[in-house]
Order: sequence, then structure tokens, then C-alpha cells
Amino acid sequence: MAVYTEVSDEELAAFAAQYDIGAVQSFKGIAEGVENSNFLLETERGQYILTLYEKRTRPEDLPFFLSLMEHLAARGLACPTPIHGRDGQALRQLCARPAAMVSFLKGMSARSLQPWHCQALGQALGALHKAGGDFKGVRANALSVAGWRPLFEQARQGADQVSPGLEKQIAQELDQLEKEWPLDLPKGVIHADLFPDNVFFLGDKLSGLIDFYFACTDFLTYDIAICLNAWCFEKDLSFNATKARLLLGAYEKVRPLEEAEVAALPLLCRGAAMRFLLTRLYDWLNTPPGAFVTRKDPREYLKKLRFHQGIRSAAAYGLDAR
Amino acid sequence: MAVYTEVSDEELAAFAAQYDIGAVQSFKGIAEGVENSNFLLETERGQYILTLYEKRTRPEDLPFFLSLMEHLAARGLACPTPIHGRDGQALRQLCARPAAMVSFLKGMSARSLQPWHCQALGQALGALHKAGGDFKGVRANALSVAGWRPLFEQARQGADQVSPGLEKQIAQELDQLEKEWPLDLPKGVIHADLFPDNVFFLGDKLSGLIDFYFACTDFLTYDIAICLNAWCFEKDLSFNATKARLLLGAYEKVRPLEEAEVAALPLLCRGAAMRFLLTRLYDWLNTPPGAFVTRKDPREYLKKLRFHQGIRSAAAYGLDAR
Repeated sequence: MAVYTEVSDEELAAFAAQYDIGAVQSFKGIAEGVENSNFLLETERGQYILTLYEKRTRPEDLPFFLSLMEHLAARGLACPTPIHGRDGQALRQLCARPAAMVSFLKGMSARSLQPWHCQALGQALGALHKAGGDFKGVRANALSVAGWRPLFEQARQGADQVSPGLEKQIAQELDQLEKEWPLDLPKGVIHADLFPDNVFFLGDKLSGLIDFYFACTDFLTYDIAICLNAWCFEKDLSFNATKARLLLGAYEKVRPLEEAEVAALPLLCRGAAMRFLLTRLYDWLNTPPGAFVTRKDPREYLKKLRFHQGIRSAAAYGLDAR
Repeated sequence: MAVYTEVSDEELAAFAAQYDIGAVQSFKGIAEGVENSNFLLETERGQYILTLYEKRTRPEDLPFFLSLMEHLAARGLACPTPIHGRDGQALRQLCARPAAMVSFLKGMSARSLQPWHCQALGQALGALHKAGGDFKGVRANALSVAGWRPLFEQARQGADQVSPGLEKQIAQELDQLEKEWPLDLPKGVIHADLFPDNVFFLGDKLSGLIDFYFACTDFLTYDIAICLNAWCFEKDLSFNATKARLLLGAYEKVRPLEEAEVAALPLLCRGAAMRFLLTRLYDWLNTPPGAFVTRKDPREYLKKLRFHQGIRSAAAYGLDAR
């Protein structure tokens, strides 16, 4: 949760006047997203989300994110779509920060995940990958295999304080991941952060995907691996194979996996676990206790990594052999 | 700003089912109020604010606050009105905390205060006091003159770190306030915290008053004194007598002040400045830097106090002698 930047009523009125959205009737900072300042803006015409991009979002990436959301929404994916000003621009400045307004999506994220949530997610993830198939933008994934070792180097000294032996465990796993990471799986736009916080449900239906600010170009199956990690472990960190089977089955109804993707899935799941283990470890060591942002325990992803290390084939995730 | 308690989708659904408001469509933690957790809840029927009362609000005071809002709203004051459940109750439990839902008010607080805002505030404050005239509830003001010395005793040791000589200045002023504080001014329900954050505007009109969780029974003029402190100083802490005159003039169109109230106004303004000086001093000394809540500088109210100490009659606030 976060609202970092205060926007005055005068700055807001001047900003809103650049859009054809009518007079502002309500404006509230909302607890959504960790990296940026988000506001729910209501006008005579409707509801919008206004985002001020804070320092962890690189301004040069914003055109990629905004054009991606626009592309996906235009293809019928339920995701926020950027609102253009009278001048045609979607990206502008507010309070000396890059800022954009997007459409408001109804729905709420699920905190207690049921199997049907995972099934709905699988379908939506397939639809996202399909809708992104003809997207022209490209953005390298800074948090894929090539990015992990530099991150590790910045965090390794504190690793053993977090969990005894962690430095060595990560070092060994990184060696293996770097050696075995696939070179040639189907690539495209991935969300790369499709955690339950970023998926809305309304009644018994998935109503939208939000927060595309980690989206990038990478193996589509890596996105699945992120979701298996984020959605299919129970609170006690046991793996729920029923949820995984439903997620993968629904995904494959939209985009069937190739044999090489199925074979690579256990390794990609280890990679996805490594990615969140490392960023959480880095944040853990660099966030003072009691600070504004809640620290997430990196050991959660160490346990998930260990689970995937014990997997020999995608059958463990509920996928049938091809 | 604050959202302290996380409410799961399941807890929320069970809670909302106790009201006749339709299915929940959206639920967002909002940055409103410092003491409690607030959420904007949207259903098929409309928008509501759901508040979970955190530990700084005493549960035994909640019936007073809720019945006051209901009383004022019924008399046409633009303020949140509690929503009753199917069982007739407005106050219930959620996530092991007292919780209540109130109506949503359109509008935004003004951050850059213009004279007309102060005029509109004066009118609304008069209307609040008038509408509260026949309210039966009573709640002592723990933050009036009798409460200041105990607060000072808890904070005096750190006072001189905040501003050299502050401990002595407060001690002397407290002696005088306790000696001279009036006994017999018109009393009634006061808001007691009507800062710009708690007043909404829509276009060029005041659209509502919120956050009645400091409301209590006290001198009506003490509420005016709080507003003069909160609304009529510029950012450089110079006093804007034009704003004060407009505020008081608009108030008096609704409820003319008695002679004794006019005479007491400078002293009440000193008292109101003392109240916020002491609570801010206490919070300053008891909030670690970098903590979740932004600390407000107590010296702002020391400067305001000094201004009022130099005032000999209410003429300085733009009130004519009676």
C-alpha cells in the first residue's frame, strides 16, 4: 500500500482539465500498488485511476507499459486502458512526476484463494498472452536469469542472517539455473507480476488484470511459472496440485503448451521462485524495520524453490506427459 | 493516511450481506483519517465508507459519534450518515474491531485555502452547531482545559529538545489558561477537529463535513477557535484577518455570538492552539522518525499560540465590538 505524493486540489483541477472527463467530484489516495502513488478519481463522467510514477518506475519504460495496456484492452482483455488527453497524450506530468490516467476496473482481489480462482486465472493468463501476440513493443526482462546474479551480489552478504546457509544455496542454484536455462521457448509479452493482488474478481468471475509495470518480453511459460508460485501454494507452503492442474488446464484451452515448454516448466518454476527470493531478500536487507512498506519474508520463496527442486517433471503440476 | 487492517474478500462479503446494499463491486483502502482504517466500498446500490475503528478510538464513544452523525444528517447537514444493517444495527464487528458503514460524500478537501473557503466553513460550522442544538448525547471533551496538564506532564521532559524554552512557555501559559478559562459560555456539540482535511468542497461549494471522531460537548466558541487556528494562518504562519472576518461573519449569520463569547475568543484561540501544540508535541516525542504516520511539527502551534497571546480583543479577528 502506498500514497507517496500529495496532489493539491489546484494541481488536480489543472491536470483534469486536460482531459475530456468533466469536473472532478472526488479524489482519494488508494492503497493499491507498492511502487507508485495511486488515486481514485471520480468525475461527472465516471471513475478513473490516476497514477503518479515514483522513483522505482523508469520513465523511459512508461510508453511501453501504457501502449501495452491500450493494445490489450483494445483486444478485449479486461485491463486498465490509458485515457488520452485533448492533446492526444496519455503520459504527462503532475507534481513533477510522470503521470497517467487509466480506466477504472470493478472487482476486488481475492485474499483466500479457491481452486476456481486459479482456473479463472489460467484462462485470463492465456488470453493475455494471446492478445499480446501481435504487440510490437519490446522490453527486456531485467529480472530474468541474467539479472539474478547482479542482484545476488548486492544481497549475498546478508543472506545467512536471513536463513543459515542461504548464501550457498542460492549460489549453487544460480549456477545450475544459468547453465540449464532454456534458450528457445515461445516468447512474447508477459505480465511478470500476476500475483493475487493484481487480479480482480467480481462475484464468481475474474473481472480484470491490473498493474502492468513489470510487463516485459520473455518466455510465456515463465509467466505461468510465476503464477504457479504465486497462486498454488497454501499458507503453510504446501503445494496444491489441484489448483495447478486447473490453472494449467484453463491456460491450455487458450494456448496449448509445446512439448519443450512442458519439459522446461519445473526449471522455470525454480527460476521464478529464485526471482522473488532475490528481490525479497534484497528488499528485506535494505528496508528498515518499521518503515512505510511491509517487508515480505524471503524465506517463503526459499521454501517454494525447494519444492520445485524436488520436481522431475511437469506431471507434478498436474500436466499430462505429451 | 492509513490503512491498518486487511479485510479479506470473504470477511467483507459476510459483513456486507448484513446490509441491504447489494453485491460488493469494489473495495479499496483509502488514505483518509489518521486514526482508523477506512475503505471505499462500492456496491450495486452506491458508494459507502467502511471504517474499522483502531485502538485510538474508544469503543464506548462510538454510539455517541454514530448517533451524532445520524442526528446531524437528518437535520440536513452534509455529513456521513451511518447505514443500518437488516438487524437495525449501525455498529458491528469486522476483523475483531468495531466497524461501521456510512454514506459516501462527494467532494475533496481544499489544500490551498482561499478566503471563500473560510467563509463557506463559517457558514457550515454555524449550521453544525445549530443542527446539534437538540442532540441529546453528551461526551466530555478530554482535550479541553482539564486535559492539557496531564498531557503536558507526559511530554514536558522532551519539550526543550523541540524548541528551547518550550517547557517553561507551556507551563506559564497553562497556569494562565487554567485560571482564566471561562465557565459559562453557550455549550453544545462541537466537531473539535474541523481541519481542512475534514471539509469537502465540490466546485465553489462546501459539500460536506467528515470525521466526527473527536466530537464532544464543549463551548461552541471553542470550535470556532479551533477553526480560526486551522484555517486562517498562511503557510508562513502569518494570520489572515480577511479569512477570519469572513469565517466569523458567515458563522454569525447562522448563530450570532453573545457578548461573553466575543470577549472570550482570544483566550479560546490560545486554548485551541495549546491543545494542538500539546498533542503534536506528545506525538512528536512518541513517534519514531520514519514511522508509518507523518509527524506534524508542534512548533507550528507554538507560533500560532504566540500570535493569539498578543491579541487583546476579538477585533483582531475581524469581529466588531458589541
